[in-house]
Amino acid sequence: MKLPELPSGIPRNLAYDSGRLSILDQTRLPGEQVRIEADGLEQVAEAIAMLRVRGAPAIGLAAAYGLCVALAAGLARSPALGLDEARQLLAEARETLSTTRPTAVNLNASLAWMLDGTDAPPRHARTAAELLAALERRALDWHVDDAHRCEAIAAAGLSLLPRKARLLTHCNAGPLATGGIGTALGVILRGHEQGRRFTVFADETRPLLQGARLTTWELRQAGVPVTLQADSAAASLILGGGVDAVIVGADRIAVNGDTANKVGTLPLALACARAKLPFYVAAPLSTVDPDLAGGDAIPIEERDGREVSHWNGARLAPRGIDLRNPAFDLTPGDLVTAFFTEAGVLRPPLDSQSG
Amino acid sequence: MKLPELPSGIPRNLAYDSGRLSILDQTRLPGEQVRIEADGLEQVAEAIAMLRVRGAPAIGLAAAYGLCVALAAGLARSPALGLDEARQLLAEARETLSTTRPTAVNLNASLAWMLDGTDAPPRHARTAAELLAALERRALDWHVDDAHRCEAIAAAGLSLLPRKARLLTHCNAGPLATGGIGTALGVILRGHEQGRRFTVFADETRPLLQGARLTTWELRQAGVPVTLQADSAAASLILGGGVDAVIVGADRIAVNGDTANKVGTLPLALACARAKLPFYVAAPLSTVDPDLAGGDAIPIEERDGREVSHWNGARLAPRGIDLRNPAFDLTPGDLVTAFFTEAGVLRPPLDSQSG
Repeated sequence: MKLPELPSGIPRNLAYDSGRLSILDQTRLPGEQVRIEADGLEQVAEAIAMLRVRGAPAIGLAAAYGLCVALAAGLARSPALGLDEARQLLAEARETLSTTRPTAVNLNASLAWMLDGTDAPPRHARTAAELLAALERRALDWHVDDAHRCEAIAAAGLSLLPRKARLLTHCNAGPLATGGIGTALGVILRGHEQGRRFTVFADETRPLLQGARLTTWELRQAGVPVTLQADSAAASLILGGGVDAVIVGADRIAVNGDTANKVGTLPLALACARAKLPFYVAAPLSTVDPDLAGGDAIPIEERDGREVSHWNGARLAPRGIDLRNPAFDLTPGDLVTAFFTEAGVLRPPLDSQSG
Repeated sequence: MKLPELPSGIPRNLAYDSGRLSILDQTRLPGEQVRIEADGLEQVAEAIAMLRVRGAPAIGLAAAYGLCVALAAGLARSPALGLDEARQLLAEARETLSTTRPTAVNLNASLAWMLDGTDAPPRHARTAAELLAALERRALDWHVDDAHRCEAIAAAGLSLLPRKARLLTHCNAGPLATGGIGTALGVILRGHEQGRRFTVFADETRPLLQGARLTTWELRQAGVPVTLQADSAAASLILGGGVDAVIVGADRIAVNGDTANKVGTLPLALACARAKLPFYVAAPLSTVDPDLAGGDAIPIEERDGREVSHWNGARLAPRGIDLRNPAFDLTPGDLVTAFFTEAGVLRPPLDSQSG
């Protein structure tokens, strides 16, 4: 299977070839399209740590490719590298990669999948070169698999959305954040390609402005009409009849449909409920946690308060105050109209379907 | 009557004495406390235009004092200034002041009240010096009156709030924005002085960050514990049991209680409704429009989109996208638990009470 094409204006966030990982530097967007051509582990680790690549699936993928980059560099330095030395090199690379981001669930899941499974390459390869080739295949397989999941999610969303719609989205759940066309944004981008008449409102998404910087850029590159607004302006747009539906991604979903997603998602769901408009969540089934009956147990990452009190290093708020900066919020499942997944359109409870 | 005292750490935004208007420059807060000592009309006009003084009541007051500054400067230049020349000078000053802000309802109401009423000074003064003295009295009377209205609003709020409460507020409705202790923030500041145990969450209030820059500063100066958060983080705080009530100001209120206030107020009311928590609006009765049965007819100011796409002159978002930047939103009256006014605690409909 091949990677499905992206809209022509949107470059791949990650492209691996022969020991080199080409990374689109998201911190330079939307101003410039700059790529880092990483042929050493440190460059990959730095790119993850500095958010040059971001979005949970994209981070996991970068880490998987990072192992390949590290081993390829080792083999380039020492063509006679032994298998045990190669395994040792990978263990060290894993250590480096796993500490690049503090909340490293995806990162560690990715590294474990590459290295730990009974069918993982370190168990079966007979030479370091064979190990590298197997890791490269495994990373690419996963990339292709993630991309096809995105396509299936998009198809599910489009099966429910009308031919013409004004859609509101929050944060960034597009090609930059995944291995494919994205989740919430994938629905919109594929619909646009198929001739749907979608117009989009993008919330800026404080404090890190992923909506203002990335979502608007992706939609603009693909030719989808997009309007940027402050997060706080979304509720009046929804109640004022300015949109037909809200569609967002998800970071973790409980069986009852409770959904953790970027902070600022919950107020959109509340506004849709009042306005009797659909509120959709687009996410792969891997996001559903079958062990969680409800969302209260989902831990909400509290990030550095300086993301709120400062901008570009300049202080906006007085010293001596407290800061609150949750990265996510929890939307009650009863406020979610439907989930768009690779298994189609689902509604809570999600236990049987996600097994 | 005298001006009620402010908490010791909070300086007056406006202080007039003998032809000189001392203006606290709000654009330099919270970093620095800088005052402009305006003894000419142009300085007052510039301070209003550049948001050095902001908040609807404070702008009106600055304009009223601006007329005094202009006439006092004229008399200083020409001690023999005739009454007709003085009236001409005031007409020109009015023209200058009224065009300082595009949405000049408060500004023009203030200028009309100073100059146009049957009891207004230009009708009765016999000399230019007498006219100046009468205008100074009229501006100060209004200042004192506004400050006492704030005190009555605070008393109304405190009659309903518990001894200990975690309160969330949005934007800035404090001493910087009014002629006195403020509206929503006045309740909190006076309660704190009286020994209530209030802790406050302040929304940053995008795009202009009045909450991050001003509300946190005022509360900090007065010693009230305050936590700053992104606007989008408020809903999860409310639904998560982190606050006991929300209290905001208002820009315009319809008879049925529909309330126009800073954009981002509506999602707070929606969250309170879901959480079954009180949502309070603190505002003078002059904010209630007895001719408006409902809020749909309230015009919502659309401000320059660059407030959203740029920060400090630097572009955050890509070129070629649309921008939406409403300054206010409309909260349905059924979501407002009560109004704190100078006539006490009111509930919709507000027609008989506000007559």
